Amino acid sequence: MSGKIRAVICGASGYTGAELLRILCSHPKVEVVAATSEKSANKPVTDLFPHLSQYSSLTLEPLNIEPLLDKGDVFFMALPHGASQKAVNSLYEHGKRIIDLSADFRLRDPVVYEKWYKEKHGYHTALSSAVYGLPELYRESIKNAKLVANPGCYPTSAILALFPALTQKIVNTADIVIDSKSGVSGAGRKADLALSFCEVNNGFKAYGVSTHRHTPEIEQELSVIAGTDIKVSFTPHLIPVNRGMLSTVYAKLKTDIAIDDVSAIYNDAYKNEPFVKVLPKGMFPDTRYVSGTNYCHIGLSINHNKTLIVVSAIDNLIKGASGQAVQNMNLMFGYDETTALESLSPVVP
Amino acid sequence: MSGKIRAVICGASGYTGAELLRILCSHPKVEVVAATSEKSANKPVTDLFPHLSQYSSLTLEPLNIEPLLDKGDVFFMALPHGASQKAVNSLYEHGKRIIDLSADFRLRDPVVYEKWYKEKHGYHTALSSAVYGLPELYRESIKNAKLVANPGCYPTSAILALFPALTQKIVNTADIVIDSKSGVSGAGRKADLALSFCEVNNGFKAYGVSTHRHTPEIEQELSVIAGTDIKVSFTPHLIPVNRGMLSTVYAKLKTDIAIDDVSAIYNDAYKNEPFVKVLPKGMFPDTRYVSGTNYCHIGLSINHNKTLIVVSAIDNLIKGASGQAVQNMNLMFGYDETTALESLSPVVP
Amino acid sequence: MSGKIRAVICGASGYTGAELLRILCSHPKVEVVAATSEKSANKPVTDLFPHLSQYSSLTLEPLNIEPLLDKGDVFFMALPHGASQKAVNSLYEHGKRIIDLSADFRLRDPVVYEKWYKEKHGYHTALSSAVYGLPELYRESIKNAKLVANPGCYPTSAILALFPALTQKIVNTADIVIDSKSGVSGAGRKADLALSFCEVNNGFKAYGVSTHRHTPEIEQELSVIAGTDIKVSFTPHLIPVNRGMLSTVYAKLKTDIAIDDVSAIYNDAYKNEPFVKVLPKGMFPDTRYVSGTNYCHIGLSINHNKTLIVVSAIDNLIKGASGQAVQNMNLMFGYDETTALESLSPVVP
Amino acid sequence: MSGKIRAVICGASGYTGAELLRILCSHPKVEVVAATSEKSANKPVTDLFPHLSQYSSLTLEPLNIEPLLDKGDVFFMALPHGASQKAVNSLYEHGKRIIDLSADFRLRDPVVYEKWYKEKHGYHTALSSAVYGLPELYRESIKNAKLVANPGCYPTSAILALFPALTQKIVNTADIVIDSKSGVSGAGRKADLALSFCEVNNGFKAYGVSTHRHTPEIEQELSVIAGTDIKVSFTPHLIPVNRGMLSTVYAKLKTDIAIDDVSAIYNDAYKNEPFVKVLPKGMFPDTRYVSGTNYCHIGLSINHNKTLIVVSAIDNLIKGASGQAVQNMNLMFGYDETTALESLSPVVP
Repeated sequence: MSGKIRAVICGASGYTGAELLRILCSHPKVEVVAATSEKSANKPVTDLFPHLSQYSSLTLEPLNIEPLLDKGDVFFMALPHGASQKAVNSLYEHGKRIIDLSADFRLRDPVVYEKWYKEKHGYHTALSSAVYGLPELYRESIKNAKLVANPGCYPTSAILALFPALTQKIVNTADIVIDSKSGVSGAGRKADLALSFCEVNNGFKAYGVSTHRHTPEIEQELSVIAGTDIKVSFTPHLIPVNRGMLSTVYAKLKTDIAIDDVSAIYNDAYKNEPFVKVLPKGMFPDTRYVSGTNYCHIGLSINHNKTLIVVSAIDNLIKGASGQAVQNMNLMFGYDETTALESLSPVVP
Repeated sequence: MSGKIRAVICGASGYTGAELLRILCSHPKVEVVAATSEKSANKPVTDLFPHLSQYSSLTLEPLNIEPLLDKGDVFFMALPHGASQKAVNSLYEHGKRIIDLSADFRLRDPVVYEKWYKEKHGYHTALSSAVYGLPELYRESIKNAKLVANPGCYPTSAILALFPALTQKIVNTADIVIDSKSGVSGAGRKADLALSFCEVNNGFKAYGVSTHRHTPEIEQELSVIAGTDIKVSFTPHLIPVNRGMLSTVYAKLKTDIAIDDVSAIYNDAYKNEPFVKVLPKGMFPDTRYVSGTNYCHIGLSINHNKTLIVVSAIDNLIKGASGQAVQNMNLMFGYDETTALESLSPVVP
Repeated sequence: MSGKIRAVICGASGYTGAELLRILCSHPKVEVVAATSEKSANKPVTDLFPHLSQYSSLTLEPLNIEPLLDKGDVFFMALPHGASQKAVNSLYEHGKRIIDLSADFRLRDPVVYEKWYKEKHGYHTALSSAVYGLPELYRESIKNAKLVANPGCYPTSAILALFPALTQKIVNTADIVIDSKSGVSGAGRKADLALSFCEVNNGFKAYGVSTHRHTPEIEQELSVIAGTDIKVSFTPHLIPVNRGMLSTVYAKLKTDIAIDDVSAIYNDAYKNEPFVKVLPKGMFPDTRYVSGTNYCHIGLSINHNKTLIVVSAIDNLIKGASGQAVQNMNLMFGYDETTALESLSPVVP
Repeated sequence: MSGKIRAVICGASGYTGAELLRILCSHPKVEVVAATSEKSANKPVTDLFPHLSQYSSLTLEPLNIEPLLDKGDVFFMALPHGASQKAVNSLYEHGKRIIDLSADFRLRDPVVYEKWYKEKHGYHTALSSAVYGLPELYRESIKNAKLVANPGCYPTSAILALFPALTQKIVNTADIVIDSKSGVSGAGRKADLALSFCEVNNGFKAYGVSTHRHTPEIEQELSVIAGTDIKVSFTPHLIPVNRGMLSTVYAKLKTDIAIDDVSAIYNDAYKNEPFVKVLPKGMFPDTRYVSGTNYCHIGLSINHNKTLIVVSAIDNLIKGASGQAVQNMNLMFGYDETTALESLSPVVP
């Protein structure tokens, strides 16, 4: 297996873990050498995920950092928020390269972290070295990062929707509204009455109204982009589909600008991006066409109230989690950024 | 059958027609005497809607105003926009009482109608006498109306979400955002590839961005409530469920007001309303609990950006169409407003 | 509240409990005076089921037979299999009238019960007095029963599909195949990864192949009807909808009989049944039209292999559980059998 | 592009056409040079299927055999039944290699074809040379075939479920029951009220009871396998998911055979098959794990009535149509049979 890097996936029994496994098995330069899970320790991966038959010889093991240190070149951490901190820090102190899919290293200010996550952040050194893993914003830093904080799904969809408009300063930074909708897999793989089929099917609802933890993450990155403090109104909604995420973003235009000029700004901003596609004028994304892929589709409109409306769609588990993590890994290890990602195609219908 | 009014349903082959039939069959004071459909003329109602077995002796007939004039005391018009104008006007000129579920008599200004519906409005007299059929706003006028323009589904959900806040002037009237989501039945009952199961299932999307025709209807009524011209940013979305509509509304608060005070304002505004329920603090509606009913559920929040977020949920076919039409009929004929409506219960799960 | 019987629902936190509450609240002769749940004791019913706002003053209590004895005239027992035995027997010994929705009193032979349910049956006296609560078969006995064993959902759909054919002896009793499909609510209301939305949605499967516990119940009743021992091949399947059950039944015809004659036999058998509807020739049931109702729809065909194919559809929670329980209660207390049931209409679409 | 064969897809605007395009675009030895559609002629493929962005330069053209003759080395025919006959025959007479996804060349006996399809078969020479394209049965003949009749989806799932049992003569050939369930994409891509989301969602039903045209196709192949005339009872059902097909097959065992011996027979029969997987004892397929793939999963059971129950699952559009067509093409052109097929993975959840 010479020439392959060895990947370890910690917290592999969830949906993001399964997607990491699925994506990496078609990566010519990566071998998954270990996968951990507390609840499912000692079970073969294929017991949990029968569709991943390529991993018939991989058995889940309890998370135990010491023996893993020599095994892996890159560590994908898909642990719950809070639980990730310590494990990531151990790896970090041993000089390992880490992609953390939890929220623990995304917020640069530990005070903000503690406020929203109701938990102390004990590893300020590691935190201060973490790079926010959105390639469209931080590609160069990701290449050399030891620790990449893989973005949340909602932030990915919201930031990509606003990045060109804020960079070009065509919209007010006050009173931006981000109305987001997510498929159910975003809530994770777990036994929970509220997530059971009969409780979710046939309905939809807002949740985490004014309190969702992705709010400060979105605000942090938009503020960096705009060079000024931004507060947003962000509301997530639960939609009865497995995958897919749509953010409808409203921002007041500062000046009289034509939709074609806004389109030009967006196309220019993303012209070299392999996974962001600005749709032609008058077209808006349908999550069906990004589900199963690492793409973000963006549609643009200006309404009669001088408001820019941006609609962005991603697959919450891929561009919103595991696909983006592999994209980051590709950057970190000098591979073509699209390896194992471009071949992911939506299964339509 | 003494003591019953005779109802005629024009355009009974769609989903709103079917819901009118279903609701009215448990109304003790109404008998449906005729139902029309061009496409399905001469077919028994039960051919189209096997679940409406109570109507086994009712056959659809082509719309023919003359012979219907003597048959009906109240006319529910569920014709397509544009087609409704002339038929409604004929009935109006013959002094009939009419509830029009189309958009043809909702916009008071024919110029606005023509701009958004790309069609002339030929019946200004009838139009000027039409009452907008939202009982929570126009109950007294509805009682005596000859012609009631039954509101659109999106406007119903949006207006009820904003009415107390605008009346009490606690929010800015500029830059209100209304992000709405609808089940598929809102698109009607028709053969259309874009509405086929495989094209809708597993995905969701925005549509009619910046162009949806319910925009001027929402603006008209919000402007009346606020006493000033209001323009809104309104975006509808298609969600893969049969029924249900949710509007998430964002409006900047004018002053520092506590959520409890906002709750008090909403509870006070709707305290006598049989079909509007303000949820307790921290709770937000799930469309599952209003689907199948005439209720509107409302949840309230204030976020860290001094923005009021109101989430309202209705069943698009009931409070958003046929249930509200029956509510209006009850008012027009002096029946208890809740007759045949209170017993509608959501079928959960 | 004079003239009303007092109902107690034990095990009210599941879907069948919720449906009992929903149906009974429109029953003019019944008042629900108590509802029990261990897990949700001390919670208001409306905390679990926000749509049952009519029960705003009813709080769930732990099951405690003694104090309930004086409170109730009829006891609906919706406890898990096994747990029901003892509670039912206590009530039985106190002379109470009971409708047991569990499987504990359905199998007349305790040896069969023990074989399939892996549990001793400790109450043979009560068991021997239990009446199998399928009104179409045992209407007269139900009227006077102390203890009614409410049928399982699969048995209800299978027995009604075969009853006329077996009674008239037109099919072989050997090698009957019953291929059944159920919506997810049949699995109950619980936190279970295997029932979570993402694990159920977009797929379907057989389960309990050759081992499902409804098999002996079906065989018991078909054997009684046929007057000979019947063994069937029964396979249940899980379908990603909330409600609905369809059984496709295959039985070899003994003689050359025309489909019209089979239709006549079925129509005759069910001509006085308020809740069984034999569809016209060439039509087959769609679960959508029985969901939300107490109806069973039946379609009939004879194929080129001299096999009778009967397709029956019910709502697994209503005719397959709570609706049938209320139908039984109506019979037991001398009310019109259809009270509170006929007004249940399917919510289509 | 040296070394690639040139493929033409006739009837590319349906779901099987789209899947052919999707699968072939990752095939290293095939270039799609033309795609036809009458209804969508002159539209770019990406107008119909935005997810197939790899085909941005391919435009649909009306079917016109003459000019296509020189363009293609292999012709995938995805035309409607009846319409396929003549086009296939033209190609056949010009010596082209053809994979016909319609039913027109599947039934060897034109009399049977005419009886079930209500249409004359005008091309007996081509018909007599056609090879039934189920690689598990006819691999060697397919390799040299000019014309391959690609099997129907139901027959694929039914035949693979019964092939080992019939070959080894462990079951009666009389009174086999095949109860099949299909996702909605099996009905094709078209504007049809009966296939609209609201008419399909939340329900399920049998259809084509005793009359479905796949019946004679199943019987033809089972009869060949068994060496005796077989008639089956086959009932298809419509399930509200996009993809997936499950057949539950019941056949009476001739002798007392243990489940482990049946498993051994099935495992042996399929031990060299790349796309058939016999599940371990006690496990049964879930369509979720084959959706998106070319696999057929098979589960086995013997019940207390000496009946063998076989459950098979496929993706109706892949192993049931386009994937199998590519598998056949690989055989015809000497490529590794799994090329472009093994990498198709299910997108779970």
